[in-house]
This record gives sequence, C-alpha cells and structure tokens, in this order.
Amino acid sequence: VPRNDTPSLDALKREIGRLAGIGPKSAERLAYHVLRMPADQAEVLVSAIRRARERIRHCRECGGLTEAEVCAICEDPARDRSLLCIVEKPQDLLSIERTGEYRGLYHVLMGAISPLDGVGPSDLRVESLRERVVKGGIREVIVATNANVEGEATSLYLKKMLEGAGARVTRLAHGLPLGGELEFADLATLALSLSGRREIDES
Amino acid sequence: VPRNDTPSLDALKREIGRLAGIGPKSAERLAYHVLRMPADQAEVLVSAIRRARERIRHCRECGGLTEAEVCAICEDPARDRSLLCIVEKPQDLLSIERTGEYRGLYHVLMGAISPLDGVGPSDLRVESLRERVVKGGIREVIVATNANVEGEATSLYLKKMLEGAGARVTRLAHGLPLGGELEFADLATLALSLSGRREIDES
Repeated sequence: VPRNDTPSLDALKREIGRLAGIGPKSAERLAYHVLRMPADQAEVLVSAIRRARERIRHCRECGGLTEAEVCAICEDPARDRSLLCIVEKPQDLLSIERTGEYRGLYHVLMGAISPLDGVGPSDLRVESLRERVVKGGIREVIVATNANVEGEATSLYLKKMLEGAGARVTRLAHGLPLGGELEFADLATLALSLSGRREIDES
Repeated sequence: VPRNDTPSLDALKREIGRLAGIGPKSAERLAYHVLRMPADQAEVLVSAIRRARERIRHCRECGGLTEAEVCAICEDPARDRSLLCIVEKPQDLLSIERTGEYRGLYHVLMGAISPLDGVGPSDLRVESLRERVVKGGIREVIVATNANVEGEATSLYLKKMLEGAGARVTRLAHGLPLGGELEFADLATLALSLSGRREIDES
C-alpha cells in the first residue's frame, strides 16, 4: 500500500462534505476549487466564516438573525405592529421578506413540532409568544410554517395555544406544493400563499 | 431604508457563492449551515482549508498533488515506468487511479490548449515532457485529456510534439459521452475508455 499522499486534501474534502446538501463529488470539486483560489480570497472565506459565527446572533424580540441586540425589522417604526408572522427558521423570515408582500413583525420558532424526532413545544421559542400577542396588541398571527406534517402539527398547536389571546390565527394558503419547504419556494408562489392565507380550521 | 442587519452573514454568503458550482440558493443554505455548526466543527473546517492550502503542492515529477517533494505514485517501485498517462488536471489523475485499471505513471498538463481562452502549449506543463518520454524509456503515452474541443486539440498537439520520441501515443476511447468531462464520468465508463484506447489519427 503506497502512503496516503494528500491527507490535508482528504481532510478538506471530508469537512466540506459535512455541509448540508454537498455530496462526495461536489465536496471534491469544492476542495480543489479552494486549493486553487488566490491566497487572499481563501483568507477572506476563512474570515467570513469566523466573523459571521462571532457576530451573528438571534434578535431578542423575534429570534431572527442580527448583529445587534434587536433586529432592524423589530426596530423599524414603519412596520405594522398588529401583524405577527410565525416562521420555523430565520431563513424563512428572509424568504417572506423577499416577497415584498408583508409589512408586519416576525416570531421565529427555531423548529417545528415533530414527535418522530422528539421535538415538542418545549423545544421551540413559544414560551413568551402568547404574552407577546396579548401585550403587543397583535390582531392577526400568520402561521407561516412549512407545508408538511411538522408544519401542520405546529400550526394546530399554535392555534390552540393562542385561543383567547385576542388575535385571528391564520395560515399560509396552500399555494405551496404539498410537502414543500418554504426555503425552496419561488417568490411568486410564496407571495400567493401569503395573500391567500386562511383561518386555521381544527374540524 | 432600514439598516443592513446582517453584513457578516451577507459576506459569508458572498464568499461561499464564489465557490465553483454554488448558486445563490445553495450559498444561502450553506451559510446558515455554517452558522449553526458546533463551534469545534467550524474551526475544523477553517483549519482544513488553511492546512490543505499550506501543505498541498505539485509533485516535482508528474505535477500531481502531494504533501511531499515527489508523490507516492512517482515513488512507487511497483508502477510500470514504461507507461505515461497525460491528464489535464490533478483531479483527472485521481479519477483514473480510481478505475484501478492503470498501473503506469502520470503527467499533469495543468490545463488544455484553448485558442479561444488564449491558452497555448507554452501555458501548459509540456516543456520537459518530451525529454521525460525519451530519457524515461516510455513506450506508450496515453493522452487522457477531456473529450471536448480543447482536449482533442491538446491530444493532436501532443501527438506531433512526441513524434520520434520512441513511444506510441494513444488516446482514451470515446466511451465518454461527447463533450463530457473526465471529472464527472462514472468509473465504469472511464475504465472502458481506458481499455479501449487507440492511436491518435491525424488524417
């Protein structure tokens, strides 16, 4: 057996291969690309990874991503403070923002209810949610969880949890293909599903 | 206009988006993944990038990748030193190795002739090639460039350049789909194209 000649390259491929959605072929292609980059570009990449991890945190109010204590959306006086859109992940917040159809506030759950994965309500950012709705004078809560089993279970839980809190609880219209995830939806579909939102019906 | 709230995240997405084959959606997904990773895993990724770039170099003999002066293949006494396989890139060398069908030596060109891109023979590692073939007692040179216009042009150039050097000059069989690149071929196709290699015919 000849010696392993490129352990550093193998390690780089392995680490790149750990990233979401990167198969072995992509990991290899990316590793070679990283090797061939100009030195300054590689350092910029490394610094970008470190800096983003150091600086990005969750907004104290909504749980979205920010580099401040409270994010720009929560602090924006032009937003409609009577509307609250609940999303699973910070990425989903960004997807909704990009439709340009929503001018209210957000609440990020950091997940969805999934009994199979052992994720229950206590694992989500829901503790202060009811209080936020009541004290914040929210008149409509738009549940923008994914159009899959976990997203549906989460929307039903939220509907019950917010009963009597004084707000309508609506859900994104199923303009999304069933089983689809918000993160991968095109903007037009997402905008449609937002304008066609409906009351959550438990019956 | 609200303040840009996540410049570090934007920078990370931008740097990841510079990588080969990563579109904007993938860059975003990867950036969030990098944010969510455990701290130690992120440091391992960063170190892997730096270490690979510091340690990996080109083999003095064949131009393949190695962390030594001369790579393990060139130093392996079990390899057939009368066979020389010429590839465009270090990745292609690895693809050929993986077929398990080849036991000779390699020569990496670091590119292919491409008049449209302004790449001529003087931009490739060909200077010492003829000398290597003559002095090394090579009896067959297998040109394993890509099955596209640049690869064909390069094979014709090499055929002429090696005239009278005492070696047969052969070319991988077109088991590869036309226009296809070695890097993305499956191993079976690549192995077939290796066993069916033929003389380069200029007529």
